Amino acid sequence: MRTIFWKDGVVLIDQTKLPEKLELITCKHVVELLDAIKRLAVRGAPALEVAGAYGVVLACIEKEFTRVDEMKSHLIKTFDLIVSTRPTAVNLSIGAKRALDAALKGGSIDEIIRLALQEAEKIAREDIDRNRKIGEYGSKILEDGDTVLTYCNAGRLATVDWGTALGVVRSAVNEGKKIRVIACETRPLNQGSRLTCWELIQDGIDVTLITDSTAAHVMKQGMVDKVIVGADRIVRDSVFNKIGTYMISIVAKEHGIPFYVAAPKTTFDWKKTSKEVIIEERSAEELVYCGEKLLAPKNVNVYNPAFDSTPLDNVTAIITEHGIIEPPYDVNVPKVLRI
Amino acid sequence: MRTIFWKDGVVLIDQTKLPEKLELITCKHVVELLDAIKRLAVRGAPALEVAGAYGVVLACIEKEFTRVDEMKSHLIKTFDLIVSTRPTAVNLSIGAKRALDAALKGGSIDEIIRLALQEAEKIAREDIDRNRKIGEYGSKILEDGDTVLTYCNAGRLATVDWGTALGVVRSAVNEGKKIRVIACETRPLNQGSRLTCWELIQDGIDVTLITDSTAAHVMKQGMVDKVIVGADRIVRDSVFNKIGTYMISIVAKEHGIPFYVAAPKTTFDWKKTSKEVIIEERSAEELVYCGEKLLAPKNVNVYNPAFDSTPLDNVTAIITEHGIIEPPYDVNVPKVLRI
Repeated sequence: MRTIFWKDGVVLIDQTKLPEKLELITCKHVVELLDAIKRLAVRGAPALEVAGAYGVVLACIEKEFTRVDEMKSHLIKTFDLIVSTRPTAVNLSIGAKRALDAALKGGSIDEIIRLALQEAEKIAREDIDRNRKIGEYGSKILEDGDTVLTYCNAGRLATVDWGTALGVVRSAVNEGKKIRVIACETRPLNQGSRLTCWELIQDGIDVTLITDSTAAHVMKQGMVDKVIVGADRIVRDSVFNKIGTYMISIVAKEHGIPFYVAAPKTTFDWKKTSKEVIIEERSAEELVYCGEKLLAPKNVNVYNPAFDSTPLDNVTAIITEHGIIEPPYDVNVPKVLRI
Repeated sequence: MRTIFWKDGVVLIDQTKLPEKLELITCKHVVELLDAIKRLAVRGAPALEVAGAYGVVLACIEKEFTRVDEMKSHLIKTFDLIVSTRPTAVNLSIGAKRALDAALKGGSIDEIIRLALQEAEKIAREDIDRNRKIGEYGSKILEDGDTVLTYCNAGRLATVDWGTALGVVRSAVNEGKKIRVIACETRPLNQGSRLTCWELIQDGIDVTLITDSTAAHVMKQGMVDKVIVGADRIVRDSVFNKIGTYMISIVAKEHGIPFYVAAPKTTFDWKKTSKEVIIEERSAEELVYCGEKLLAPKNVNVYNPAFDSTPLDNVTAIITEHGIIEPPYDVNVPKVLRI
């Protein structure tokens, strides 16, 4: 099942309900979709790209339009609303922009709807296709019997389907290789325990959960063959990903374990360096509470950055839909990814 | 306030209630104390040593004895009961044994009670004294303005008072140095967020909470001057401590940050090497649930070791009540600690 798809509206897996239950929600109005995005019911850069595009489609049908110019002006206003929902999630605006541009080419109300939906479905197909390609390339690095340590959720639930880091595992398993996964819980929001474990169990892939701080210990015990993680942004000197990824890269290096990043072209931001990237800080509540339970004194100071940066020196190779890229990256990154 | 003391019974801070509230419980019967130990209302090797001794005192007074031999046989039976409560916590039996041996020397009912309580109070004083000494020696490594990263809780709450790793911080602060602490939350039981943050805030010491996986990031940002952790056991080649300590030692080394272990003589087990130590595995529930909240699929495989081992090569120095020991440890560990 896709994480997000169109069926008389935008249907998506409500990830805030996982692993408790698998619940699909259907958004018929733009506000419902934006609420789902804000609540992180749908998250992950590739999934948000499609969500943004579907948002424009919802804007086409949520009202009865009689005039084309009135409809187009509603779409433009809605586009601004979508973009402002999570301003740092560039993929959301990329997807919405593509659907808007397609829609604005329409000459009739029906044609506008058709063009917007067509573009949204194209984006979704592109995402699945590129993840499949990442999987195909990536599976070459995995040998039968390998154990892969992963961090956060770079799986089907972060994309339309298949996933990036977990897509590599899926492709290898599909080719008949026996692959085991060790998932780090990924504090403070536990995307590893909540999402990665859930989706791998759904697929019957062998997964074992550890605390983030157990990563070095399992490596020392010889329990890990390769590390594969996703990426939020890849700049000329570093990979930005969920806080903790940098730590994993250091302990992998210490134990001589290859550390791979699996990510599509849209993640590359090759014109920038790490100094130009601002790391988002999130609220203290994420560490002070777990559900209703108080984990720390209410008034404690908290430092809760959402991302860290892993120097490319720590990265064995980057797996993309354009192939596997090995160091030196300044030479080997192909032109198509220098965006 | 001491973590555990005697006042018409054993009075202790119920650590399961922290940081929600500071609640003292008084145990008048051995079973109440053993229940508190099982529930981890009191934990930490040094605190358990005293708890074990107080357990023998409770056995002396919880019944009306008329004959000395009847009383002594009750004490011996109670000793076995105390030891079996947490069989791997050797300090519990060490403390209980000392109080029992003292009590058995008594010739009358009153004398037995007096000797047992006297020995228990002696153990408590010894713990405070050695922690103060660890603090005095250790504070020499801290400079005014330093930020110390610590892991788990090696503080007052793990001892009778003052603490080991946090004792070093307290002593430096007492000498007028401005010291800031960064506390890792320490999954899965959050002793860092629940206990370390709580006791430092109580003392007005500046503390900032991070997730365990943020440790490498704060080091890279130049936010950490020194790491100080406690220890559960120090063998000839390694330090056994809370799972995650090994990871912290690797990332400290990567960033050129000194990594100190603060621990008393009773932690040394110098006749053994790490190969002879079995690492306790704890239940899956600790990762699957947080309070009532489900964090992972109920049926997920979990690997949850309680400890890891940090090679002494990663340890800059060990701070003990007998002074600061620097490498090479096989040469520099004094005879008094080769136990």
